[in-house]
Amino acid sequence: MKKIRTPFFIVNPKSYLYGEESLQLALVADKLAEKYGIDIFYTAPFTDLANIKSHTKYIKITAQHMDPLVPGRGMGYILPESLKAAGAEAVFLNHAEHSLTLTNLVKTIKRAKELDIITIVCADCLEEAIAIAKLGPDILLCEPTALIGTGKTSSSEYMIETTTKIKEIDKNILVMQASGITTGEDVYKVIVNGADGSGATSGILNAPDKGKKLEEMIQAIVKATNENMKY
Amino acid sequence: MKKIRTPFFIVNPKSYLYGEESLQLALVADKLAEKYGIDIFYTAPFTDLANIKSHTKYIKITAQHMDPLVPGRGMGYILPESLKAAGAEAVFLNHAEHSLTLTNLVKTIKRAKELDIITIVCADCLEEAIAIAKLGPDILLCEPTALIGTGKTSSSEYMIETTTKIKEIDKNILVMQASGITTGEDVYKVIVNGADGSGATSGILNAPDKGKKLEEMIQAIVKATNENMKY
Amino acid sequence: MKKIRTPFFIVNPKSYLYGEESLQLALVADKLAEKYGIDIFYTAPFTDLANIKSHTKYIKITAQHMDPLVPGRGMGYILPESLKAAGAEAVFLNHAEHSLTLTNLVKTIKRAKELDIITIVCADCLEEAIAIAKLGPDILLCEPTALIGTGKTSSSEYMIETTTKIKEIDKNILVMQASGITTGEDVYKVIVNGADGSGATSGILNAPDKGKKLEEMIQAIVKATNENMKY
Amino acid sequence: MKKIRTPFFIVNPKSYLYGEESLQLALVADKLAEKYGIDIFYTAPFTDLANIKSHTKYIKITAQHMDPLVPGRGMGYILPESLKAAGAEAVFLNHAEHSLTLTNLVKTIKRAKELDIITIVCADCLEEAIAIAKLGPDILLCEPTALIGTGKTSSSEYMIETTTKIKEIDKNILVMQASGITTGEDVYKVIVNGADGSGATSGILNAPDKGKKLEEMIQAIVKATNENMKY
Repeated sequence: MKKIRTPFFIVNPKSYLYGEESLQLALVADKLAEKYGIDIFYTAPFTDLANIKSHTKYIKITAQHMDPLVPGRGMGYILPESLKAAGAEAVFLNHAEHSLTLTNLVKTIKRAKELDIITIVCADCLEEAIAIAKLGPDILLCEPTALIGTGKTSSSEYMIETTTKIKEIDKNILVMQASGITTGEDVYKVIVNGADGSGATSGILNAPDKGKKLEEMIQAIVKATNENMKY
Repeated sequence: MKKIRTPFFIVNPKSYLYGEESLQLALVADKLAEKYGIDIFYTAPFTDLANIKSHTKYIKITAQHMDPLVPGRGMGYILPESLKAAGAEAVFLNHAEHSLTLTNLVKTIKRAKELDIITIVCADCLEEAIAIAKLGPDILLCEPTALIGTGKTSSSEYMIETTTKIKEIDKNILVMQASGITTGEDVYKVIVNGADGSGATSGILNAPDKGKKLEEMIQAIVKATNENMKY
Repeated sequence: MKKIRTPFFIVNPKSYLYGEESLQLALVADKLAEKYGIDIFYTAPFTDLANIKSHTKYIKITAQHMDPLVPGRGMGYILPESLKAAGAEAVFLNHAEHSLTLTNLVKTIKRAKELDIITIVCADCLEEAIAIAKLGPDILLCEPTALIGTGKTSSSEYMIETTTKIKEIDKNILVMQASGITTGEDVYKVIVNGADGSGATSGILNAPDKGKKLEEMIQAIVKATNENMKY
Repeated sequence: MKKIRTPFFIVNPKSYLYGEESLQLALVADKLAEKYGIDIFYTAPFTDLANIKSHTKYIKITAQHMDPLVPGRGMGYILPESLKAAGAEAVFLNHAEHSLTLTNLVKTIKRAKELDIITIVCADCLEEAIAIAKLGPDILLCEPTALIGTGKTSSSEYMIETTTKIKEIDKNILVMQASGITTGEDVYKVIVNGADGSGATSGILNAPDKGKKLEEMIQAIVKATNENMKY
């Protein structure tokens, strides 16, 4: 099992960035991961993973999805072994934009464990998060679908409740909160409210200077960590 | 519009090969494409496309699927622009193992045309092939699903009928026949029966020496071409 | 093959109405079908079809979807034979809210022909309509998805172009235009522009008196028919 | 919340029976439910539910699936309110032949609770069953997909382990075991191994006399109940 340092941060450019642009932001993330000693996960289109891996050293290369298939048929599906071979260390599953059947989610988490790939599993409400918690994901992201892309963050109460409920079921699961993160302040709030990690998409991509915005968020992770360690 | 030399050949290892193994067979295909002057399409998992592209010169890098999305959201889906950036020149659509809704098939073919990506669209019966022919694919593969992986080829009558019917609708469409191709003889039969191309998966992968089997098939393409030119 | 009298009208309450409410509107439609001698198709949830059939004589009971399965497995899918047994005479396929894979669309149209069920197949753009036309549907509904539920009708140019293109491929196909129909005037416009039929959902359901609104639309069918017959 | 008497039995003819044939077996089931005082759930195609309800008094009318939609759009989907209006008291969800996304499973169970519809939720392995148990289904059917239709029953160890694990998570959930039930003896074995209910499809449908086979199974329920009460 891979060890994840907390609090971590996930940069998730979805399908907004690809090719050279995706690589450029990955290089920034890599420098920040080294400079601040923070675990940064970086997602990219499947086609970009190997190239980003070969140009970076500190970020965790993360796929946006994978399927439960094994080497063989499966034309056009995402073979877990192909992600591993490309250098991916982690994978998102069940994102609101890519729901999985429960049956496939169970199988895909099993395949990830076989290949030692970190699973970041998404839930869009607390009931779903609780069911997923029983499946032993590494990271559980509890993000109300209605808030995705809105720039509105979850309330502190929501964050504390979901984190607590998930940890009660399985204390080894890392809980991530990431709705509407647009500033370092948002990231700070998430971490001091007890989350193990945060992340952003549009909050970074819409900034005039993506690299600077990302550094602001990573610095907030550091600040919140120091804050938390006082207690 | 890209010009495709006919008869062409498609090597489609699906999800059987990935990483180093996929690259090795691609290198063989690349040498054969150069040696015999034949257009060879080579499919690979999305993660492998860029790497294979950077190690080859003659084969046409081919993706196994893509989605109709544009840069933006679309977590875990296959962005056409990401394929293009990775060096892909062609894409399979609507394979029997990855059926598309008609609505998405229409949209995805449009996206491919925008990006000048060659479309290889699959049909599993003649009725479906006829409908697809109206959508203007570059290559239409009419493969009875029941024969996939069986080592049984379609009958000459079936091949001639489907090729004729498709060309009647749009004479620019290249017709591919590829059911149960396991020998050079099978490939030869397909081409002399009027198909513009052929291809194989298990026929190559199950051979004791994949490269040798592939060369046997490419030589059959050459032989059939010479045969056809006599008339 | 069932004979459909044109111009026809389709009342499609989708999942807005069910049970008693659905039956009440069906009874109104039945009276209007008798009174004006117009073929009226009436859709309802699967559970309501048999009951509506047993209380009506003139409307054509229409299912909102069916699957290509044959009697056997297929838990929770819509068996064509079960629709037929319930008295359904027609079925919608490939509605924008229920896209079918092309493979299943081909199979389902075949099953409908076997059972002599009228197919009303939807397309959301002209390219899709043209592909569907090759599959031999009884009625083809070419409704730009963007207009559904907006109260905006397609332009006369759009209606004439789609109708012409579809008839060129197969003159036996009846073409329906139904985007944004909210008044008798809208229905009239559709029919004088050459469509074989029209229909509505929200245009009827949002009216203060659904029955009265429906009669307004049926009267417009009659008026347009008389108008067309003059020429 | 509806009270379910245990042990119960589920007759699930899937899409094998429809119309008159489905009604005939339902009538037999109804008589047996009355005669033996056993809760019998009876599934049928959506189109048949209302008619079966109107001809029976004791069986629980059960739908094979439903969708999470609310009255409104949703062309061709299964509106929960339409099932309720037709007299359905229960619904299968996530059957191996009709997998649901986890997100939709959560929503659909909520909708069922709102309408007081009993949920019979299927899992195809223990991990999946455990996740589902957190969602509060009324009945949880843990049926290894590989055994469906084979006539092979689960081992006693498997049955006892799954029942125990599910009850540990939520003791209110009724656990059903139903793989490969073909004889009264199979049913008896399931109930004495601690399950709250059993059921069959092909075990009944393949019998020369379906009604007699069903009575054999119901009698086994009675026998096992008496057996269990001794301890």
